[in-house]
Amino acid sequence: MKITDLRCAVIGRHPIVRIVTDEGVYGLGEVEFTKTYLKPFVLHFREALIGEDPTDVERCMLKIRQRGSFKPYGAAVSAIEHALWDIAGKAANVPVYKLLGGKVRDQVRVYNGSIRRKRTGDKPEDYAADVKWMAEQPQNFFMVKQGISFHSNMKDNVEDFHYGVRQTRSGYHGAMDQGQISERGFNHMLDCVIAMKEVLGDKVSLALDCGPGWFLPDAIRFANTVEKYNLMWLEDMLTGDYVPWVNPQAYRELTLSTTTPIHTGEQIYLRHNFKELIETQAVRIIGPDPADIGGIAELKWVAEHAYMHSIMMAPHGTANGLLGLGALINVCATLPANFIAFEYPSASDPWWEDIVIGLPKQIVKNSMVDLLEAPGLGLDIDPVGAKKYLLEEDAGFFEP
Amino acid sequence: MKITDLRCAVIGRHPIVRIVTDEGVYGLGEVEFTKTYLKPFVLHFREALIGEDPTDVERCMLKIRQRGSFKPYGAAVSAIEHALWDIAGKAANVPVYKLLGGKVRDQVRVYNGSIRRKRTGDKPEDYAADVKWMAEQPQNFFMVKQGISFHSNMKDNVEDFHYGVRQTRSGYHGAMDQGQISERGFNHMLDCVIAMKEVLGDKVSLALDCGPGWFLPDAIRFANTVEKYNLMWLEDMLTGDYVPWVNPQAYRELTLSTTTPIHTGEQIYLRHNFKELIETQAVRIIGPDPADIGGIAELKWVAEHAYMHSIMMAPHGTANGLLGLGALINVCATLPANFIAFEYPSASDPWWEDIVIGLPKQIVKNSMVDLLEAPGLGLDIDPVGAKKYLLEEDAGFFEP
Repeated sequence: MKITDLRCAVIGRHPIVRIVTDEGVYGLGEVEFTKTYLKPFVLHFREALIGEDPTDVERCMLKIRQRGSFKPYGAAVSAIEHALWDIAGKAANVPVYKLLGGKVRDQVRVYNGSIRRKRTGDKPEDYAADVKWMAEQPQNFFMVKQGISFHSNMKDNVEDFHYGVRQTRSGYHGAMDQGQISERGFNHMLDCVIAMKEVLGDKVSLALDCGPGWFLPDAIRFANTVEKYNLMWLEDMLTGDYVPWVNPQAYRELTLSTTTPIHTGEQIYLRHNFKELIETQAVRIIGPDPADIGGIAELKWVAEHAYMHSIMMAPHGTANGLLGLGALINVCATLPANFIAFEYPSASDPWWEDIVIGLPKQIVKNSMVDLLEAPGLGLDIDPVGAKKYLLEEDAGFFEP
Repeated sequence: MKITDLRCAVIGRHPIVRIVTDEGVYGLGEVEFTKTYLKPFVLHFREALIGEDPTDVERCMLKIRQRGSFKPYGAAVSAIEHALWDIAGKAANVPVYKLLGGKVRDQVRVYNGSIRRKRTGDKPEDYAADVKWMAEQPQNFFMVKQGISFHSNMKDNVEDFHYGVRQTRSGYHGAMDQGQISERGFNHMLDCVIAMKEVLGDKVSLALDCGPGWFLPDAIRFANTVEKYNLMWLEDMLTGDYVPWVNPQAYRELTLSTTTPIHTGEQIYLRHNFKELIETQAVRIIGPDPADIGGIAELKWVAEHAYMHSIMMAPHGTANGLLGLGALINVCATLPANFIAFEYPSASDPWWEDIVIGLPKQIVKNSMVDLLEAPGLGLDIDPVGAKKYLLEEDAGFFEP
């Protein structure tokens, strides 16, 4: 089997990868809707892959893997990897999890990091009402994740939240907002945690997405102060999101200081950039995203490396869409026992549920999703239904 | 002063950045000609920068710096940084080196890593003839760098050079070709070194660009075996070029094993990714590229960090073109005493010398270049002369 074309169409806001072969089999991959601009980055790899056998996934990946990098530059390579596995699974007539070593669980646990309504404000009562709403959703999530501090409007809406430079003009989300957190800001965050825990009790667990932008002293103080609330984790305090470096040394200081589990990793590309984080036990939980780390096989390998070091896995997936959900389900079915749950992804638009074929009507039940048993990654896009969402330049996207 | 536009035109094969302001001052930056595809990556940052004051370079960089990464994804951010400094220098009516702390040398040393003719083959006599030709060039380079092993055709043309998988179809240069080097391959490299040193003696120094693709045992054996030839350095044996990770732990093993200086760093983005390489003394020389590391100010900072650790500086610059040369000259004039020399860059086409204004006829004399004393980075493109090289879509590139 040979690759004859690699296409990319932006559907809704998701760049969708479609790899076409000389045997009529095709594979699909999806990029986060927050990276709509990524189409040229995907097509950059077209020429390198044409003529390759997509069912030898690793040989294809050897050609392009080194041309990815920290988020967002691992996404094109990752989505291509998903499409290759989709083909390999279809060619072997098995779900992809069978090609990743086989499943070790029949359902996969998910947490709520993306199903949201607009929060009524940034006060403790707003946070409490927000998680109450989340806990009442039909998916019955075992855990919700909330943004605080630099990962929320709190940094701007709470007066004197921090003593860093206030950025008057918005930029890219990530490392831009940073500063020493004021005592008032610190107490505000603490009040929000208390208010949320009062609502959730120990019925629904709570994790906080915190940054990046903290400095180590604030992070250590906060992680220690919230110890009694048994948070699932504190995420991305020091680096994370779109920060193109890791700083494992600082994370190790933070982790050693507290019983609150420290989490990071969504922006990190490849095992090599996780190496020190894992081997020095610098965090307790890592959250690689299969659509950023370099693909599902890379995520699997890193999960096993983490497992060997008693580090937990909670893969990121916020904006990965429904095909991205298929990739997450397949790989997470195969992860070792350090797997907690993956972040249930949203799609750019509600109509995605109408055009993606292969998902049950109710996807999440009791915070669990069923495996997808169709060959490949188990999902497809209905070309007829999708037609009205295609841009003119992508008219040929679904052609054989 | 406010940025009113950020443009990018591919001229020859170089993506050229032009930042335009409301006061008529503009700045230029240049991307390596090996990254012709980078135009959309540059324009990605346009919206974030419009309205900013380009003379507060750091505030602009805070907005975009985190969206670069390992090579090639640091190049867009870096070229933009050069253009910002170009404006800042013009606005202050000083050469940019004055804004980087001021010069500490009146001329800057360069080495030959890019002025080449096609080598007659891969045998020791071909290598000897090649460096003889290089040593006879009018620039009188104090040092030449030669590609061997995985960084040359040797890996394919010398029978059984290595025992790794032979890649039958070409891919992106970088981490793809790897393998245990055969004894025959090892001896072949050694014969080439001996032949080159016989020609060069101690008149012209020799460095070798080696990979990446070596494994540690081969690298240690080779570095030890060539100790008596006093090579300037062995470059990028383990990682380098387009490898999106560093592996400082392995480099430290190599460095500790030998008196031959070990060099890497051209693909590394930002100080954070140099941190461990420097702080653990993992190499003896680093070679960041101002057009990849995140800009000239970033390179300056990293050079000072390296200096504090007795690590030498030999910045990369092979394909940076003539505007890239201007950036290298300005920053290298300011580097501390650990500066050895920078890699003299080539441009994509010989006609670049006709359209770049501000360079002397003979740029390199006795392996040294003079500083550029015009405001900003000291160089400009002649819009009339450049017109015939502009693509139709870039017709407005030189407009005010």
